[in-house]
Amino acid sequence: MGYKHDKTTIIRQGAELFRKKGYHKVGINEILEACGIPKGSFYNFFDSKADFARQALANYGSSQLDMIRAVLRNQDLSPLERLKSFYRMIIEANEQDGLDAGCLVNNLAIEIGGLDGQLAATANKQFETWIGEIARCIQAGQDAGEIVEDVPAEVLAEYLHAGIYGAFSRMKVTKSRTYLDQWFQLTFEFIAS
Amino acid sequence: MGYKHDKTTIIRQGAELFRKKGYHKVGINEILEACGIPKGSFYNFFDSKADFARQALANYGSSQLDMIRAVLRNQDLSPLERLKSFYRMIIEANEQDGLDAGCLVNNLAIEIGGLDGQLAATANKQFETWIGEIARCIQAGQDAGEIVEDVPAEVLAEYLHAGIYGAFSRMKVTKSRTYLDQWFQLTFEFIAS
Repeated sequence: MGYKHDKTTIIRQGAELFRKKGYHKVGINEILEACGIPKGSFYNFFDSKADFARQALANYGSSQLDMIRAVLRNQDLSPLERLKSFYRMIIEANEQDGLDAGCLVNNLAIEIGGLDGQLAATANKQFETWIGEIARCIQAGQDAGEIVEDVPAEVLAEYLHAGIYGAFSRMKVTKSRTYLDQWFQLTFEFIAS
Repeated sequence: MGYKHDKTTIIRQGAELFRKKGYHKVGINEILEACGIPKGSFYNFFDSKADFARQALANYGSSQLDMIRAVLRNQDLSPLERLKSFYRMIIEANEQDGLDAGCLVNNLAIEIGGLDGQLAATANKQFETWIGEIARCIQAGQDAGEIVEDVPAEVLAEYLHAGIYGAFSRMKVTKSRTYLDQWFQLTFEFIAS
């Protein structure tokens, strides 16, 4: 493996540890063990745990953005159907994942958003690119007469983005997808025109 | 101060540390320092950090429940106005708090919901009592013709409860109340009958 492949692999494995266990629970040693790399290699790539976390957030955000674009720009479905398909996919992915982890960026936003301005800004940047894609699809749905038009697409996008994150909290303490399914049903009833 | 007062004071100060910094970031030593008590006293009251956190969650949940009941059972306002007043109060409280902490139970649900079954169950119990109070007020609003009737009150209560938590994530990484205000406005448009 070349330099880039190594680094990306480490970032992805570390991101998965952070997503499942949180930021402060996971030490650098646990990341090293999971990746099978010596400490020196870690510090060749990253200045600190916080630097590693910023790169993990950016990498996760970017790969999620690719997935979001693939679904929300799929011209085979109407904009509203693309949105439904996107959130169904998130719910299914959480079920396959054991319903106890959720989203890396949301988890780190809640855990360290108030503690580390740089990590908060990196988390927020991922949110903004994702919400931009959601707003773009909502706007197309409004133009097509599928989605209520009296609310700006960006505001509705924030609302959808926040809503499922809130449902993740109950999901994580109950290990049940009920709250995600109820959120989905109500939200799409409310936003349908 | 007697035994009970001491213990409650420690629990409240520790809960505040957990709320602002998260569970894994705060060690027992930081709690001892904040409360000015020796380690021996801590272990007279609590078996472990996890035991302390469970009691902190229960204490916080109970004091929040008192506040929720005071607002949501206030017969001077209509049920819908009580609900609005409740969420306005939460938004104002977060603004006064610096917009970077949010709710202890939500924070711990996200951080340790997938890691510690007992803490998850304690967090969930607080959610359930709060949501029960919200559902009771929503049912009264439905009976009074103020709130959409085609969705069970419990489901709408879950939806409101989750929604503002989702908005907390963006609040924490932007230090802005915009997302709480937008959530408020849209939610009450959607649920008004």
